[in-house]
Amino acid sequence: MTPEPASLCLGCWQNLHLPIPLRGPWSAPFRVFGIRPSRMNPNTCTICEMAFSKIMKARAVTIDATVMFADLRGYTALTEMIDHEALSSVLGAFYDDCAAAIWRYDGILNKTIGDAVLAIFNFPVHQSDHALQAVMAAREIQHSFTGRQAELLRAIGRSDIELGIGIGIDSGETNFGEFGHSHRDLTAIGTVVNRASRVQGAAKAGQILVTQAVRDRASDIIPGLGSDYALKGFAEPLTLYTLEAKMPVAS
Amino acid sequence: MTPEPASLCLGCWQNLHLPIPLRGPWSAPFRVFGIRPSRMNPNTCTICEMAFSKIMKARAVTIDATVMFADLRGYTALTEMIDHEALSSVLGAFYDDCAAAIWRYDGILNKTIGDAVLAIFNFPVHQSDHALQAVMAAREIQHSFTGRQAELLRAIGRSDIELGIGIGIDSGETNFGEFGHSHRDLTAIGTVVNRASRVQGAAKAGQILVTQAVRDRASDIIPGLGSDYALKGFAEPLTLYTLEAKMPVAS
Repeated sequence: MTPEPASLCLGCWQNLHLPIPLRGPWSAPFRVFGIRPSRMNPNTCTICEMAFSKIMKARAVTIDATVMFADLRGYTALTEMIDHEALSSVLGAFYDDCAAAIWRYDGILNKTIGDAVLAIFNFPVHQSDHALQAVMAAREIQHSFTGRQAELLRAIGRSDIELGIGIGIDSGETNFGEFGHSHRDLTAIGTVVNRASRVQGAAKAGQILVTQAVRDRASDIIPGLGSDYALKGFAEPLTLYTLEAKMPVAS
Repeated sequence: MTPEPASLCLGCWQNLHLPIPLRGPWSAPFRVFGIRPSRMNPNTCTICEMAFSKIMKARAVTIDATVMFADLRGYTALTEMIDHEALSSVLGAFYDDCAAAIWRYDGILNKTIGDAVLAIFNFPVHQSDHALQAVMAAREIQHSFTGRQAELLRAIGRSDIELGIGIGIDSGETNFGEFGHSHRDLTAIGTVVNRASRVQGAAKAGQILVTQAVRDRASDIIPGLGSDYALKGFAEPLTLYTLEAKMPVAS
């Protein structure tokens, strides 16, 4: 399933035309200087993570991007029902499915937050169709997690619970970089990030909910009828579009 | 305000009796091998972050810890009201206040999640009174952020809004380590983390809400009367105790 990892950093090649070896003997001298595959996307390198402070001489940039939140539904109840080891294997499986799908579509797995994953598309690898790529990644996450559910529940010895993922996606202008001075942390902030998070909160298990902005950019694979949702913190209701996990994954 | 950073890694010294230089000329050879101050707590090093896989030969450990979530209230509305630059300076100030307080009380700023900060106390620097340390850090965060509020609002040119932080704290057994196989990310999981997050969600701006477990361990500085809260995902209501931000910070 997982594609072959890139041998050169995709981000450096695309943005700086620099061939930075990520794997194999040529990567050894680079590793001495701390240049290695990024944890957020192993097809890009740690230079890409530091691009702001070191190369752009800026702390943050405003980019057009797509932000995706994926969340394991019923996780709080789960933490009370199963032991740490079982919880760790469920969460590990969820993170792995997210990472595989996000990286396949050239996004970064920016961070995991307990039962949630935050992914960003269009940085450092640029994609003119980043909204579409995010939707494809979301469908693959739903597809692979559903596919391994029975095995996972057998492994933790619980056939009485149901696991499911809710996903929310939004596209638009995002502020991406390092915020705070003492604690450096590469992330995205702004309305798009917050909206994606709220949209994810409204998604049921097995659902992918996307905003109008995402639908406008990926109308080919998103059905036509939206519904209005009142989301916490937003004055106006938002029109959201649903993709069910049951849809076949296009290959 | 900020204490002098440690010159030796506190975590390595305490756990392994190894003197790992973090700063000054002795740190240079260590930096070549990627050993440098941790981003999560500059008084510990990157060895501490990797302690699980490299030293303990385990992927995660179960530890007694205190978990704190701090969240900037009204952030979603704020993202719609102010521009990226102003947002970035508000968030930066919030992160900086959190980092300073968390590090002063030997915790790690595990991650920032949009408008929220996740801190863990009792790893890698062990503290027998980690619940108390977390409460002290929470009070300092409230105190410093309140203190700089007027200046911050002047800087972004908005006197019509009010900024405030809600904080939630819980203590108990936590699973700490690296979860997922493809995406490595050091964090804590389990009921305590989830409960701390939900407790934070229930805290009003300026409030610190703590669970019974925290109160039992830090009863000296937490007033006696609790209230019952019904929190999402928890079957039973929880008794929580309130500390107001207005309380003077003990020094």
